[in-house]
Amino acid sequence: MKQTREKGPRKRPFSISSLDPSSAPRKLRLARLRAKLADQRADAIFVSSLHNVSYLCGFTGSAAALVVDEASATLFTDSRYTFQAAEEVRGARVRITKKGLLAEAGAYLRSRRAIRRIAYSEAQLAVAQHHALRKAAGAGVRWVDDGNAVEFLRIVKDVGEIAIMADAATLIDSVVRAVYKQIKPGISELDIAAEIDYQMRRKGAAGPSFETIVASGERSAWPHARPTNRRLGKNELVLLDQGAILRGYCSDITRTVFLGESPQRVRRLYHAVWEAQQAAKGAIRPGATAGDVDQAARRALERAKLGPYFMHSTGHGLGLEVHEGPRVGKGSTAVLQEGMVITVEPGIYLEGFGGIRIEDDVVVTRNGYRDLTTAPRELLEL
Amino acid sequence: MKQTREKGPRKRPFSISSLDPSSAPRKLRLARLRAKLADQRADAIFVSSLHNVSYLCGFTGSAAALVVDEASATLFTDSRYTFQAAEEVRGARVRITKKGLLAEAGAYLRSRRAIRRIAYSEAQLAVAQHHALRKAAGAGVRWVDDGNAVEFLRIVKDVGEIAIMADAATLIDSVVRAVYKQIKPGISELDIAAEIDYQMRRKGAAGPSFETIVASGERSAWPHARPTNRRLGKNELVLLDQGAILRGYCSDITRTVFLGESPQRVRRLYHAVWEAQQAAKGAIRPGATAGDVDQAARRALERAKLGPYFMHSTGHGLGLEVHEGPRVGKGSTAVLQEGMVITVEPGIYLEGFGGIRIEDDVVVTRNGYRDLTTAPRELLEL
Repeated sequence: MKQTREKGPRKRPFSISSLDPSSAPRKLRLARLRAKLADQRADAIFVSSLHNVSYLCGFTGSAAALVVDEASATLFTDSRYTFQAAEEVRGARVRITKKGLLAEAGAYLRSRRAIRRIAYSEAQLAVAQHHALRKAAGAGVRWVDDGNAVEFLRIVKDVGEIAIMADAATLIDSVVRAVYKQIKPGISELDIAAEIDYQMRRKGAAGPSFETIVASGERSAWPHARPTNRRLGKNELVLLDQGAILRGYCSDITRTVFLGESPQRVRRLYHAVWEAQQAAKGAIRPGATAGDVDQAARRALERAKLGPYFMHSTGHGLGLEVHEGPRVGKGSTAVLQEGMVITVEPGIYLEGFGGIRIEDDVVVTRNGYRDLTTAPRELLEL
Repeated sequence: MKQTREKGPRKRPFSISSLDPSSAPRKLRLARLRAKLADQRADAIFVSSLHNVSYLCGFTGSAAALVVDEASATLFTDSRYTFQAAEEVRGARVRITKKGLLAEAGAYLRSRRAIRRIAYSEAQLAVAQHHALRKAAGAGVRWVDDGNAVEFLRIVKDVGEIAIMADAATLIDSVVRAVYKQIKPGISELDIAAEIDYQMRRKGAAGPSFETIVASGERSAWPHARPTNRRLGKNELVLLDQGAILRGYCSDITRTVFLGESPQRVRRLYHAVWEAQQAAKGAIRPGATAGDVDQAARRALERAKLGPYFMHSTGHGLGLEVHEGPRVGKGSTAVLQEGMVITVEPGIYLEGFGGIRIEDDVVVTRNGYRDLTTAPRELLEL
């Protein structure tokens, strides 16, 4: 493995001084959610997203709904999760349902006379589910969109979350470094992907945060290629995009390497992507918009006459989900705040030639940003 | 590894004689779907489920919608998938959208004067998505539920699908057999889960069809436990539930083993679950209902005075999704047909003691059923 260009930055121990590490996070989250509900003049919220449920009360089962009102929180799940709910849930009562989550949650809402106006996620509840819920709750309840109330809370991470996300990033960094050693002509994309997933599990991840992408040669021009049986050849690009879930939180890193000594065209294109990433990171600070970050990457690639080959967003928020707020794309008006975690991942894709993408996870700090992923960013020739 | 009880059946080469292997599946699927639409007096269907999209036109990207009308099929995706769509899609035109899938699919519907009544899945489309689509399509279009038209087609597998599913089952069988050798006191649940996932990838799977379950000791009483750092001890149950995705299709197998020489209580409970599984399989034949299969398992456990400890369904349909039709639970009136693939997985869960589940994937044949998974079902003492 030969390294060209500059050395990557060294990892420093993590700290964000001005965030309060002493808060009891679940209680605080419920309190903040209640404040948002009050703003919307809603008496309660029906939470159907499993990520939001786990964020608010800790439950990680695969069937659940949570109702939060001014005074209480009630988790609905089924008998498969009786023991698990007893062990995991904090800050909410647990109801084991027998007749279906929606029917029983709806009946509960009907029985609570003080709940007249209830928020729910139009973006997440299916038409049929909402129909069932509305029917069970009766005509006395008015349903309003929750305005992504819980997702909005989740965008700014607390100190505990950032500590976990830094660990998830360190984990995937170490996977990438370990896997480089196995990348050579003759190994298949699927073999590398299997190795990546295996390494992350061995290092403690619950699993990949999305289907691991290993794309070689011309296939690297597919931004979301699935790994195939294709065997790596000499003198081609290999794009690796992978992330790990650790204690519920996602990491997400992309590196592009070259098998052999890279020709000048590859080095020039790689450098342009690297510069775009640097420019985007340089635009990150509290008060800037996510659209500013996107524009910085886009302009850098346009200056290199590569604008048309960058056909996706510069990044996305990262947390319990691998894609969450804020949107880091063209025209995004989301204002960056300390504690937000986003990816920065410009890339270019030339059909018949290949693709290059460099992606890091960064946290917005008081003065700018800090990288969570730190695996070398220079063009590696393997 | 010591085996007790009878030997498992040997795998035979697969054949279902009366199914026609010569059909061009995608064309046939679209033709069948159109016949269903005609039954529902719908002019077209808006397909939003990615599994349904891939079933109908072969596209496997993560952002897509498909509109099928009497004469044509149109896939909507975005520029990330330009190359992939060109390579994968058969039987449909491809539109690369710039303003969002829903906006452009809706505008397309608005432009097609002959489309007045359009089916969609109320169970899969979110309230907000439907709102956006309706708005783009205009008031001239009437939206009706699709009655799970595509899912209904998917329940009965064709010969090509069953061949893939048999391979997916053989693959996970071989993973289970390989992993048995590594199960011993001191290894953690997470280590075993990592090994399972690694083995399936090495054997060609795209990945696990769900988060692999490894639950040891008392934790095996959680039917859907996630693996933890807990290390296996002597004289305890270990429940392994895993599946692999191969060429898009899922397998799903559960085995429960004992670390050490099993006490009589464990043997008695295991035998009761095994008998329940045998009874359920014995009820499988074309014309029987899925509810009959469930009842056979349930009655067997009730006879053994274990009814209250079996608190989930006996099985579920299996295919592109790990849970699909038919429902194999209490009172299911779904009539079994040749070519359906279901799991049969009775289990009992005793808090503070542990759980035992045995699960196989079976295909309904002309005269009964055939096991797709065939790893030994007797109680293994490792």
